[in-house]
Amino acid sequence: MERTLPLLLAVLFAAGAVQAAGPYRNPDNKNLSDPLEGTYPVPYKLPVAAEITAQLERVRGFIDRATPSRIVDRKTGQPVTDFGAPVASAFVETSPNDFGIMNYEMGVVHAGLMNMRALTGDAGWTALTERHLAFFKERTPYFRAQEEQFKLGRANSFARFIKPHALDDAGSMTAAMIRARLAGIGPDLSQQIATSGDWVHKQQVRLKDGTLARNRPQAWSVWADDMYMSIPALAELGRFSGERRYFDDAVKNALQLSGYLFNKEVGLYTHGVHLHAPDAPQFYWGRANGWAVLAISDLLDVLPKTHPGYKKVLAQHRRALLGIARQQSGSGLWHQMLDRHDSFLETSGSAMFVYAIAHAINQGWISPTTYCSIAQAGWAGVSSRINPEGGIEDGVVATTLAGDHVYYYNRPVSVNAMAGYGPVLLAGAEIIKLLNNPNVVITDKVKTYHYRPKTP
Amino acid sequence: MERTLPLLLAVLFAAGAVQAAGPYRNPDNKNLSDPLEGTYPVPYKLPVAAEITAQLERVRGFIDRATPSRIVDRKTGQPVTDFGAPVASAFVETSPNDFGIMNYEMGVVHAGLMNMRALTGDAGWTALTERHLAFFKERTPYFRAQEEQFKLGRANSFARFIKPHALDDAGSMTAAMIRARLAGIGPDLSQQIATSGDWVHKQQVRLKDGTLARNRPQAWSVWADDMYMSIPALAELGRFSGERRYFDDAVKNALQLSGYLFNKEVGLYTHGVHLHAPDAPQFYWGRANGWAVLAISDLLDVLPKTHPGYKKVLAQHRRALLGIARQQSGSGLWHQMLDRHDSFLETSGSAMFVYAIAHAINQGWISPTTYCSIAQAGWAGVSSRINPEGGIEDGVVATTLAGDHVYYYNRPVSVNAMAGYGPVLLAGAEIIKLLNNPNVVITDKVKTYHYRPKTP
Amino acid sequence: MERTLPLLLAVLFAAGAVQAAGPYRNPDNKNLSDPLEGTYPVPYKLPVAAEITAQLERVRGFIDRATPSRIVDRKTGQPVTDFGAPVASAFVETSPNDFGIMNYEMGVVHAGLMNMRALTGDAGWTALTERHLAFFKERTPYFRAQEEQFKLGRANSFARFIKPHALDDAGSMTAAMIRARLAGIGPDLSQQIATSGDWVHKQQVRLKDGTLARNRPQAWSVWADDMYMSIPALAELGRFSGERRYFDDAVKNALQLSGYLFNKEVGLYTHGVHLHAPDAPQFYWGRANGWAVLAISDLLDVLPKTHPGYKKVLAQHRRALLGIARQQSGSGLWHQMLDRHDSFLETSGSAMFVYAIAHAINQGWISPTTYCSIAQAGWAGVSSRINPEGGIEDGVVATTLAGDHVYYYNRPVSVNAMAGYGPVLLAGAEIIKLLNNPNVVITDKVKTYHYRPKTP
Repeated sequence: MERTLPLLLAVLFAAGAVQAAGPYRNPDNKNLSDPLEGTYPVPYKLPVAAEITAQLERVRGFIDRATPSRIVDRKTGQPVTDFGAPVASAFVETSPNDFGIMNYEMGVVHAGLMNMRALTGDAGWTALTERHLAFFKERTPYFRAQEEQFKLGRANSFARFIKPHALDDAGSMTAAMIRARLAGIGPDLSQQIATSGDWVHKQQVRLKDGTLARNRPQAWSVWADDMYMSIPALAELGRFSGERRYFDDAVKNALQLSGYLFNKEVGLYTHGVHLHAPDAPQFYWGRANGWAVLAISDLLDVLPKTHPGYKKVLAQHRRALLGIARQQSGSGLWHQMLDRHDSFLETSGSAMFVYAIAHAINQGWISPTTYCSIAQAGWAGVSSRINPEGGIEDGVVATTLAGDHVYYYNRPVSVNAMAGYGPVLLAGAEIIKLLNNPNVVITDKVKTYHYRPKTP
Repeated sequence: MERTLPLLLAVLFAAGAVQAAGPYRNPDNKNLSDPLEGTYPVPYKLPVAAEITAQLERVRGFIDRATPSRIVDRKTGQPVTDFGAPVASAFVETSPNDFGIMNYEMGVVHAGLMNMRALTGDAGWTALTERHLAFFKERTPYFRAQEEQFKLGRANSFARFIKPHALDDAGSMTAAMIRARLAGIGPDLSQQIATSGDWVHKQQVRLKDGTLARNRPQAWSVWADDMYMSIPALAELGRFSGERRYFDDAVKNALQLSGYLFNKEVGLYTHGVHLHAPDAPQFYWGRANGWAVLAISDLLDVLPKTHPGYKKVLAQHRRALLGIARQQSGSGLWHQMLDRHDSFLETSGSAMFVYAIAHAINQGWISPTTYCSIAQAGWAGVSSRINPEGGIEDGVVATTLAGDHVYYYNRPVSVNAMAGYGPVLLAGAEIIKLLNNPNVVITDKVKTYHYRPKTP
Repeated sequence: MERTLPLLLAVLFAAGAVQAAGPYRNPDNKNLSDPLEGTYPVPYKLPVAAEITAQLERVRGFIDRATPSRIVDRKTGQPVTDFGAPVASAFVETSPNDFGIMNYEMGVVHAGLMNMRALTGDAGWTALTERHLAFFKERTPYFRAQEEQFKLGRANSFARFIKPHALDDAGSMTAAMIRARLAGIGPDLSQQIATSGDWVHKQQVRLKDGTLARNRPQAWSVWADDMYMSIPALAELGRFSGERRYFDDAVKNALQLSGYLFNKEVGLYTHGVHLHAPDAPQFYWGRANGWAVLAISDLLDVLPKTHPGYKKVLAQHRRALLGIARQQSGSGLWHQMLDRHDSFLETSGSAMFVYAIAHAINQGWISPTTYCSIAQAGWAGVSSRINPEGGIEDGVVATTLAGDHVYYYNRPVSVNAMAGYGPVLLAGAEIIKLLNNPNVVITDKVKTYHYRPKTP
């Protein structure tokens, strides 16, 4: 029984089906014998900035340990020291957690770290970003030479940078590199920004109407994930270059991808559509919705308010956040399939929603009255998934665009699911910002929380 | 295992997730080896009037024991015997179950007891009502004098009566006192009726359009609970005084509060809205819906059919009962959040729905064909929550208007949650009435039940 | 613990609430250490024709053993050998599983067996059909004589054939007998086809608009089950006779019954409606939806494309399959109540959906891109319910048209629930056909599956 009871309770919790199973009591209610106070499956309380900071430091430490930036010779197992003439067997040392430092998930990590630095003024937050970007700068010539000589293709550790071939290779990291550049963090990577940005703006396949698309799993498919893999990069290219064509492309894709993917009745994005078979059941995968709202949030951050598409993009963002907020579970987290409350509780999508909601409040896009308690409850859920080592529990691993619920319901979760790390950093930072937001007032801190705008 | 298995099953049951877990077998099917007969989590069968009566007697006993009407000196712990000169430390003895005899929940208890008396002709049912009302009559002068001398404010045990300051203080008990008056039960409390009724009709804050409102948690908020805290009082004031202005106010609030709170697509009332942030996720809290339909049911009972608002109010009632009926769980009870079938099964809201549905059938407002089996199944669920001492299990404690599902999903349940007691009495009485309803025919009593109007 | 853990897991599984609880791993992914591969509650993989054939052989064996075709004397317990003069106590030997060989469920079994024979060319598949039909042919005169002499009414073992009195007696078996006739399987049963078919086309009660109806549980009720109990028979009578009036009647009922029962917003059929109380909660019982789509599928198979109703019927079929596909659970099966994902997973309805979806793909009515993975996932679920003896587990027993969810949620499941057997045969055969479908291409067989039309 000792062995199986925790398992069973974990199973029950994963399904979100347990009422008042504890073990958390709200510490803001000091009356320990209050019969009107229950227990919670997550730490339901007013968040505390210092606690969040400590949690994010743990997460940062985890990512740091998981992303060595070292080049090793596959044959000898020894570090490469001679960078004069490339060898075919040189590669970037494998992460103990299979975290790829050039993967799109890492772009989100840098965004989160840069936000924490901006919030705290502490440059320690971006030491990891600086280390990664310096490594890119320093070693790109080596791997470029290796590629010219040995034609390794995707086996080249720098393949994504040298020759991007999908939005996944290019968009997220382009946005991160531009943000670092504009904040003066790390070396000048303008050349890489040009290469990666060009893939997004010019080379990725598109539908006839200009919407970014993929030829898999069907010719043609449109994916919600691609909103994040393109729109932030295009928006940042607009900010970086001052050229309106990038903003136009970002807005066009924000609106057109939403047109294909967002179900206005349900208020959610379906994971993807196949153009030749549009009349299909929809799959409201949590993380896909997360990518969509992160992307649009990033666009609204830098899009000039005078742009003709600004109001439409903002209206779409409000619609999506309302639809997502409606689906929040009784634990503050969201389910793997947002509308399927018998699917498991998933961390990465949840963290994206907490960030997107809290950020939209802080930016004045949505009402604190409506959304602050949802963001706070969401953080209660997400923060409960940070383990003592700073690992993120219960994040779903990489998931393709599929056509049946058996696939989605049964995807594994893993502390090595990299996609949750950046969003948790973003979410925590944004909750701290919310707690310090001078335009938001918090009242009635006993048992539940009411926020309101300082001047309604 | 002995310890944990029942716990786990209880947890599973609470989530409503177990199929055919028994332990009940329908006794109306006499064929004990019928392979087409399963087991039920609740006593699914044709209700039996004598059993219901016995159950309600237990409930009445519980409430009786839980509501001593005695004045005690807080300093000495001894009963006060000298009612000549008030002392500051005199207060109404605390209920072992924290049942406040002047609380709005007690108004519903009196309604249930008076219905049982009317149904059975047995005055024993209202002995408790008579005791409470006599105590109010006798001791109001004492506490009024105490207040004048010591200015205790809300610490005065009779504060609600002496100086109401919210609908919760006034509406439900006003309705109960008028009903008792008109039925000749207890002493003449006309003066208190005037004081309490005046709060509802004249003093409670309202929106510009005349809708009753609150300035908490937001300025301004509109609560579904307030439908019960006002409409029955206004309706009974109309009946009591014969003055149309009360009916007009009751109808106006029934329709306008429904306008703010009822979602026609979903068919449910949201717990509340904040006027400055209307575009928000909705929270279909069970008991809030219960208060709403109880209120409108009470109004329809006394509103002259010739009133210009009668048809609109009736149409709204039908819409709400349909929406609520749609959400009934597989155990006959309804969930804490009506549309969230992974939230716990909650007794007080369920009892309110059983009453409202059965009563609407008995009044001829809705079809017995459609609703009788739902009412019967609902009673199977509710009656299973009456414990051997007459306590009501699994009723949720007092719950404020909140903004996140974590709060609602994790509210504690308690046998001391007073709000379920009156509704269980109302529901049981109304089911007995339904069983005796000469206009309803029951057929096919094996395995399931079909009711129809005697003359369709 | 050894005893209770499996029980608890079974309970959890029944509610569909468990994530990745295994025990199945997808064998198509050969990388045993792939961190992106999880486990499944059902055998999620590309189906294998030989495995399906073996499973269906087991099912056929189970049905064969469950349907002795022997006449016994109730008094002596001995087989009747003298068929010269009928005795009152002669009856068809009881099935060990209570499978009635003349029941409507057996019509579906014959359909499944005949499909497997057509698919494989192996006449062994229809040996059971031939045995049953020969028995009908041979013994009808005996029981007819018994009836004339002893007036046993429903106690006559051949009552359904001699004097049908409901659609349940006539429609399904009429369709099966015609199909057998046209395929040259078994003896000539034209006379019985005429008798049974006449009941469907001429004698069953109808509403004024010509819709087939019942006078129970209400006068009048319309049942989704009756779509299968009439439409396939009418359609096959059209094919058999070449007379258009049968097609007209089939189309009329397909469209009008759908008009009464199909909720276009929800995309599902309600189990039934009572004409005098149409404004009621709906009960989306799985098997009722199964009967509806089986019926319309059968009609589309034989209805001339030139019939003026063809397009409307096809449009309705597409709407229903889309609505059903949307409700598939995370285990591939569907729930007892399709929209209630906390109700148990039910096999018979699920098998009907797998057949209807796979068949519609094979017939070119719906997109393989959208529906193949759903059909495949459905078969993963259904096939996991075939036990080693060929029995079908977790099929719900006979279920009447009821008015509350407590009834539906708690219906027993049983290996003796005959309604699942024919649909499992149909589903398995159709999945084999799909695997062999030259117009469908399968790609990306690792972790999930993508199908597409050969020429989109």
